[in-house]
Formats: sequence, C-alpha cells, structure tokens
Amino acid sequence: MQNVNRRVVLASRPKGYPQASDFRLEEEPIRDPDPGSALVRTHYLSLDPYMRMRLSDAPSYVPPIAIGEVIVGGIVGEVVRSNTDAFTVGDIVEGRLGWQEYGMARADTARKVPFPDIQISTALGILGMPGMTAFFGLLEIGKPIAGDTVVVSAASGAVGAIVGQIAKLNGCRVVGIAGSDKKVAYVIDELGFDAGINHRSTEDMGAALDAACPNGIDVYFDNVGGPITDAVMARLGFRARVVICGQISQYNLETPPQTPSVLRPLLIKQARMEGFIVGSFQAKFEEGRTRIAQWIRDGKLKYREDITDGIENAPEQFSELLRGHNFGKKLIRMFPDA
Amino acid sequence: MQNVNRRVVLASRPKGYPQASDFRLEEEPIRDPDPGSALVRTHYLSLDPYMRMRLSDAPSYVPPIAIGEVIVGGIVGEVVRSNTDAFTVGDIVEGRLGWQEYGMARADTARKVPFPDIQISTALGILGMPGMTAFFGLLEIGKPIAGDTVVVSAASGAVGAIVGQIAKLNGCRVVGIAGSDKKVAYVIDELGFDAGINHRSTEDMGAALDAACPNGIDVYFDNVGGPITDAVMARLGFRARVVICGQISQYNLETPPQTPSVLRPLLIKQARMEGFIVGSFQAKFEEGRTRIAQWIRDGKLKYREDITDGIENAPEQFSELLRGHNFGKKLIRMFPDA
Repeated sequence: MQNVNRRVVLASRPKGYPQASDFRLEEEPIRDPDPGSALVRTHYLSLDPYMRMRLSDAPSYVPPIAIGEVIVGGIVGEVVRSNTDAFTVGDIVEGRLGWQEYGMARADTARKVPFPDIQISTALGILGMPGMTAFFGLLEIGKPIAGDTVVVSAASGAVGAIVGQIAKLNGCRVVGIAGSDKKVAYVIDELGFDAGINHRSTEDMGAALDAACPNGIDVYFDNVGGPITDAVMARLGFRARVVICGQISQYNLETPPQTPSVLRPLLIKQARMEGFIVGSFQAKFEEGRTRIAQWIRDGKLKYREDITDGIENAPEQFSELLRGHNFGKKLIRMFPDA
Repeated sequence: MQNVNRRVVLASRPKGYPQASDFRLEEEPIRDPDPGSALVRTHYLSLDPYMRMRLSDAPSYVPPIAIGEVIVGGIVGEVVRSNTDAFTVGDIVEGRLGWQEYGMARADTARKVPFPDIQISTALGILGMPGMTAFFGLLEIGKPIAGDTVVVSAASGAVGAIVGQIAKLNGCRVVGIAGSDKKVAYVIDELGFDAGINHRSTEDMGAALDAACPNGIDVYFDNVGGPITDAVMARLGFRARVVICGQISQYNLETPPQTPSVLRPLLIKQARMEGFIVGSFQAKFEEGRTRIAQWIRDGKLKYREDITDGIENAPEQFSELLRGHNFGKKLIRMFPDA
C-alpha cells in the first residue's frame, strides 16, 4: 500500500464552469485511523451535479465547501485499517468521504454495501444517491399512475435513466430529453422509453414535445431547468406534477436569466411543482434499495457507467459532467486494480 | 315588477384593462320561465377577478365568453316566477346567472341560500366562491400548522381577508400585503393580522418581508403574481407551500414580463407550489360553508363588502376591481330595495 494520500481540495470558488485552477491536487501522509474510525481505500469516486452548488457560497440546501477543504463526494472503497467495531478490514463501504484516495469512515458517515451479488460501483449510482433520488422523487413527488405521460430531462444520466425505467415499470408513457442522438437512441432502444428528443439538435422544443406527448404531460421530472423546462411548463396537462430534482443548466450561471412565469400554467392546470432533496427520504432508503436490487436481478432495470481512471482527472471530468458530456453515471476509478 | 331585463354583454375582447366600450348594456323583454326553470330577480351581482380570464380567448381553465353573450357572474336573488318544483316564489337563491337584472335558474345552476340568519350577500362572498376558495385553498393546499408564518397577497380582498383570518384561527402568524395604508390598517386592526405591507408605498418589498417575517415564510397564498410574488419566492422557508389562487397583476397584460425562475428556490427549500381551482372542492362545500357560518355567528370571522348600485356601473366597477381600487368584496346592488 502506498503511504501517501492524494486528494483534491478547493483552491478558489469557480466563476461559471469550474476550471482546473479552482482545484488543487495535494498529497499528505496516510494516517492511522483514530478510535471510532476506519481507513478506507477508495475504489470509485462519484461525480454528481449537486456538488457544483457546494463549490459556491450562494444560498443552497447545503453549506459551501471552504477554500482548502477536500471536495465533498460519495465513494465506495475497501476498509484497509480499522479502529472501530463498526468495520472490519476487507469490508466494502460507501460514504461521503470526499475526493481522495484514502478516506476515514465512521459508523455515522459510511455503511457497508449491502448486495454482494451486484457490482459495488452501483452503490454510487443506481443503488446509491442517484437511484434513491429517482425512486423517491418519481414515486413520492411525481406520483405517476399507469397511462400517465412522464417527461424526464437529462434522460440518459444517472438519475434520468432510472426515472424513465421506473415510470415504464409503472405503466407510463415515457419521453426522454437528452443531449445527443446517441443518448436518445440509448433511452429508446436500450431502456425502452417510448420517445426521445435531442435538445441540442431540435430547433423547436415546443413542437417536438407536442409531437412526443400527444395527450399532454402528466409528470415532468426535471434535472436541468432553463429553456427545456420552460417549453415543458407551457404544455402541462391537468393536475400535472413537476418534480424539481436538479437545475444543471443553471448551476454555472453567474446571473440566471429571466424566464416566463410558471404561476399561470400551474394555476390554469391546477398543477403542482415541488422541489425535493433525496435525504428527506433517508428513513426509507432500505426499502428503495431492496426494490431496485430486485429489479436489477430480474433484468428490469439497466444502468450505464461512464468511468475515468485517476483522481487527477476528477476536476476535468466534473466540468465535463456539468456540460453534459458524460454518458451514464460518472465515476472516477481511483486505482487500476479496483 | 318591470317588464324589461337589463343585461351586460361582451361587445369586444379587452386589450389590457377592460374599457367601457368592451361591454354593452342591452334590454330585452322579461320572458316567462320554461319548464324546469325559475325567473330570478337579482339582488346582488358578484364581481370577481377570475372573470377577466373569461373575457379573453387565451388558454385558461374556463372557456371564453363569446362576443354578444351575457357576462358570466354569480348572483343572489329572489325567485319571482317558478316553473319547477326545485324553487318556490320567494326563495333566495345563488347561482352563476350572469350580469343581468333577471336571470333564469335551474336546479343544476342555482341553489337556495342555506343560512337565513346571515346576510344574503355573503352567498357571493365569505359564504360563497371566495369563502370556499380561501377555506379549501389555505387548508387543503397550504396546509398551515400552528406557528407557521402565512403571507397573503391582496390581503383585504374577498379571498385574502378570509385566508388571513382562518390562518389566525389555526394559530399562525399572518402577514398581509395590500395596496393602501387604509387596507393594511384594516387587516391588522380589524382582522387581527400580525403585520402588513403596503406594496404601493414600500420601495423594497424584500426588506419589508424580511422585517415582517423574521422566521421565514411557511405558506404563501398568492392572489396577485408579479413582483410581489417574486419577492416572496426569494424568501421561502424550508418545506414552504405556495398556493396559487389568482394572478390579478397578470390578467391585463398582453405580454407577461419575464421573471426570475422559481425552480431554484423551490428546489433548495424543498418547497411546493400548487395551482388550484375552487370547483375541485365542490363535494366538500357544505362542510366549508357550515364551518364558516359558525365562525361568523361566533364573531370569529369578519367580512367587508364594497357595494355599488346599478348594473350600468358593473363594467366600470369591474375595471376598478382589477386595479385593486375596491376595499372588500365587490358587489353590484341591482335595485335600491335589495
């Protein structure tokens, strides 16, 4: 085992899209775990859009990361030294241990990965935060019923792909919006969505939505915000439900543009729009994971990962993610043997 | 009884605020009621902001009134001739019989006013559509609990005044936004609101809201939309609920202005925004009316009416209402003896 931990800290608050200079790769000696802690060798680091909000000091639902602090991020890894009864050397654990090759886990910051028959990287994706986000956001906030038309943005992404598949399992018609023809083909051909729209090549989003949703839109699961969302809002059906999960198109804007008000469409359609954070459903995560794991085993849910090697590539890959250049759940593999 | 019915029809679709020339006062002979109908002499005509949407052919939750058609409106009046078992001469009834001195009621378009001990005009206000709107919109969509801070716009109006009082009965802190110092004094001194803001004289709505709502805003009952609502949205509390009841500031705009997006505030506060139409709660109206009537008898709910005589004044008074120049529930008294 190496005796140096490489980690990425925040060097400066990004303006717009994060730059390489906003991050700094540091090395520190690997410490022995304090009592109550275990040293974890990171296998996979999760890159997720919400992290962009934590790099900023604008008001958000989470406090900002301080300058010089390790970037927040979920990881899966293996316990290599333990100073707690909670973990044994060799345990595979998941927790928000940050952008570093070695992190410290405590019983209240990490958990053992529960399904040994499923790839451990899924603890960061379909069986982790993005999977829980899709499951509870769609089912508890969107409340789809069979026959509903469900539109999901960032449809091939870590959350969107699961949202659409769970909506299909619930008997819905599913329309995915994504940023390339390849992604649109994937959600239709591989994931079974009913229709897809490439928002980068479509000149008239409104007309494309009208064509894809002839019976109106009952549920909109929004990961992006911006003009795509504006076009959807103008086409809501009666008693539609809008799940605000993410606003990736807005995170890197210094001054968000003005938009058409959504209040009138919500009023005249008696529709509901609701923001949610997956942590609110923490008490039910075990239920969600169990259901999703069974769907994976039964071949009813598919997932796709987009993996890059080496922590030194994390800042650039994070910026690529924010630009929508990933294709599936974005992960950094820390060591070639993971 | 006169033998001529005076009525107001739509002459042209208003651009912006309705003009006198958009309406036409007509006379027609009074007809005998057809089988199944009763002739009703109107005592009070209700003027309500939602009617503005029906004068327009823009998409809405109700079909537009056709050119030449009697303007839609709720009335209370007395049955003067009956050709149906449903009504007897002398019955006081309420129904959407339109802007006319005499209307035709059927069992499915009118109902007997149920509380003989309470002024009949209340069937158009606190015990009618505005009262039901306040009761069900606040309690079923806003879901206030004791200790919540509830902000209501158009706070001295037919709906807002009831919303605020019911919120007080539920143990909430209530802040009313209204358009004059007199209205603000009324909601505080007469209705018992905790604080008020005159949006016409307040230069910085944000600062005024911060001062009036030191613990954030839990429920916003919106009757107006526009800049007032923008300022509230930026100050929502955790899990806040926004009830979209009306958007009076927007109804007369040919091109609604762009606004800051509400999606980010809803997301980071895990807040909910929902449009509703009172008709959705029709099955529960009797429950709502019974509760409100008891509160009136117990002196726990107050109401204020703003009455103008004569149908010929209905168009101008409607325009005044849309400008916020009313003070209380706006009514037209059709005959001096009503």
